[in-house]
Amino acid sequence: MRLAIDAMGGDHAPKEIVLGAMDAISQIEDLHITLIGDEHKINAHLTHAKNIDIIHTEEVITSEDEPVRAVRRKKRASLVLMANEVKEGRADACISAGNTGALMSAGLFVVGRITGIDRPALSPTLPTIDGKGFLLLDVGANVDAKPDHLVQYAVMGSIYTERVRSIQNPTVGLLNIGEEDGKGNDLTKKAFALMKDAPIDFIGNVEARDILNGAADVVVTDGFSGNIALKTIEGTAMTMFSMLKETFMSSMKTKMAAGMVKNDLKWLKTKLDYSEYGGAALFGLASPVIKAHGSSNQRAVLNAIKQACHMVDYNVTDTIKTTVETIKSDKEE
Amino acid sequence: MRLAIDAMGGDHAPKEIVLGAMDAISQIEDLHITLIGDEHKINAHLTHAKNIDIIHTEEVITSEDEPVRAVRRKKRASLVLMANEVKEGRADACISAGNTGALMSAGLFVVGRITGIDRPALSPTLPTIDGKGFLLLDVGANVDAKPDHLVQYAVMGSIYTERVRSIQNPTVGLLNIGEEDGKGNDLTKKAFALMKDAPIDFIGNVEARDILNGAADVVVTDGFSGNIALKTIEGTAMTMFSMLKETFMSSMKTKMAAGMVKNDLKWLKTKLDYSEYGGAALFGLASPVIKAHGSSNQRAVLNAIKQACHMVDYNVTDTIKTTVETIKSDKEE
Repeated sequence: MRLAIDAMGGDHAPKEIVLGAMDAISQIEDLHITLIGDEHKINAHLTHAKNIDIIHTEEVITSEDEPVRAVRRKKRASLVLMANEVKEGRADACISAGNTGALMSAGLFVVGRITGIDRPALSPTLPTIDGKGFLLLDVGANVDAKPDHLVQYAVMGSIYTERVRSIQNPTVGLLNIGEEDGKGNDLTKKAFALMKDAPIDFIGNVEARDILNGAADVVVTDGFSGNIALKTIEGTAMTMFSMLKETFMSSMKTKMAAGMVKNDLKWLKTKLDYSEYGGAALFGLASPVIKAHGSSNQRAVLNAIKQACHMVDYNVTDTIKTTVETIKSDKEE
Repeated sequence: MRLAIDAMGGDHAPKEIVLGAMDAISQIEDLHITLIGDEHKINAHLTHAKNIDIIHTEEVITSEDEPVRAVRRKKRASLVLMANEVKEGRADACISAGNTGALMSAGLFVVGRITGIDRPALSPTLPTIDGKGFLLLDVGANVDAKPDHLVQYAVMGSIYTERVRSIQNPTVGLLNIGEEDGKGNDLTKKAFALMKDAPIDFIGNVEARDILNGAADVVVTDGFSGNIALKTIEGTAMTMFSMLKETFMSSMKTKMAAGMVKNDLKWLKTKLDYSEYGGAALFGLASPVIKAHGSSNQRAVLNAIKQACHMVDYNVTDTIKTTVETIKSDKEE
């Protein structure tokens, strides 16, 4: 197994990327990692170089760069060279915690799509109360989705969830404004009809209110709504934590109470931390591409690496490809 | 001031509706309320009947009823008779905590639209960290919105916020998947261009992550995305409260701590409770129509009544009408 990792992407690069990579090498057999980025900065943290090599470059795509233009013009950027490693068969999968839009562009233009998939989907796994988690897709790779795209997301999400997350016959729900059949906008009404015939365990519409409660293992939506849902979860959780902090700091008594539950609340925060589930996979590309969270630490990087390895080991890409081909040939019959 | 109120709508009807109505009568001068519903059930809670009369009916639209059909067929339903009172000029505004879809239908088909407004918008006021709150619209009246509709929402939301919420020159943001100009799907890109020319303080795109932080006083979006955002906020808050409860119940120590912060946490829950800000107004109708939350208690009903009174007192409907006419005639010049 060979992975290419953008060592310069994310808020804590390259340090946490390098530390996470070293952890992965020590835990995963036959793993080889290529780190792409500034050799000097990488070497400052690289205490064990076994099975790790470096492709040196000083060019970087920042979070301020306009994604499509950056990928086209910054041909020596760490993120672009990383995608190249996959394209040219020197790596089985790649990971970046950098500019999401640029990673999607590099995925589309450098790595390329699976034949038959119209649009890739960005797919994070989010926490649920019971700790099982669920896959939400798309959260922004394709903001003007068509009904057919949503069906492909459902199929790709099911395959990933079954193979990588080891959930047999995962349930698939369509994110909608009501549970009843026939609810929704033009897009979801059409997608609903198509999803009923797809080779998935489609359970119908699910409401945003219920997704953290585990309403479905795979929640399908267009990239615009999915992005709104994802960022609303983040924003609401952040707001509540900051209100909670304010509450705990308001008096001597509450400060004492805070001291008593500090560790337990840390656990709560961990439970809500979706980097525990790895990064967001870009489904529909010719090889696995993982977007690790921008704030990824060593542990999050390690989890993203494990996720990429699972995607390769369990043939997620090939299975998507053959399933999509089967659906197409069934349709043509 | 005369209000018509559906006494049978909501989880705690008619009791909390009647109690809220009596509170309002005792607090607001020259207020007259017509309660519509089952006379016997209403009278069981009506201890002060001053300035309150009843229109008796036994027909009710339930939450299971299909909205449009229910409004057409159940002509004697409390919700329909309520809308009739407004239509026929016997009430200045109306309030229901019942079936949201049915209220939107009754608003559209019975009360009627303001000339020049294409689609009404359902508009709750949501909490922010600083307690100021913000208006989110639309959250589901119109799930296939066009760019023009979003501009009308922005204008209506601004007028309401300035008049009723007393915020001078309220800022208006477009809910989007990134803050930068040019971000978004086809709808938001087109709406962005139009909103720049509207008579509002347009501050550009706002992200879902920031809305509870007070990113804008008025947040404009299509009914589908708005509904997803609203229900994601509700779902995330519910999930966190239940995880918090679990955390506090996990050991003797955490239980002790819970006892010490109990009242403070109640305050946190109140701060997040958007019934404090009244109900969700349906903007764009010929008279104010308010959707009180389904779980409304006495206090929430009182707040919704105050909100309806403010909308009438401050001529929100007429101001929307003249503003929309001005925009149209400016365009035609």
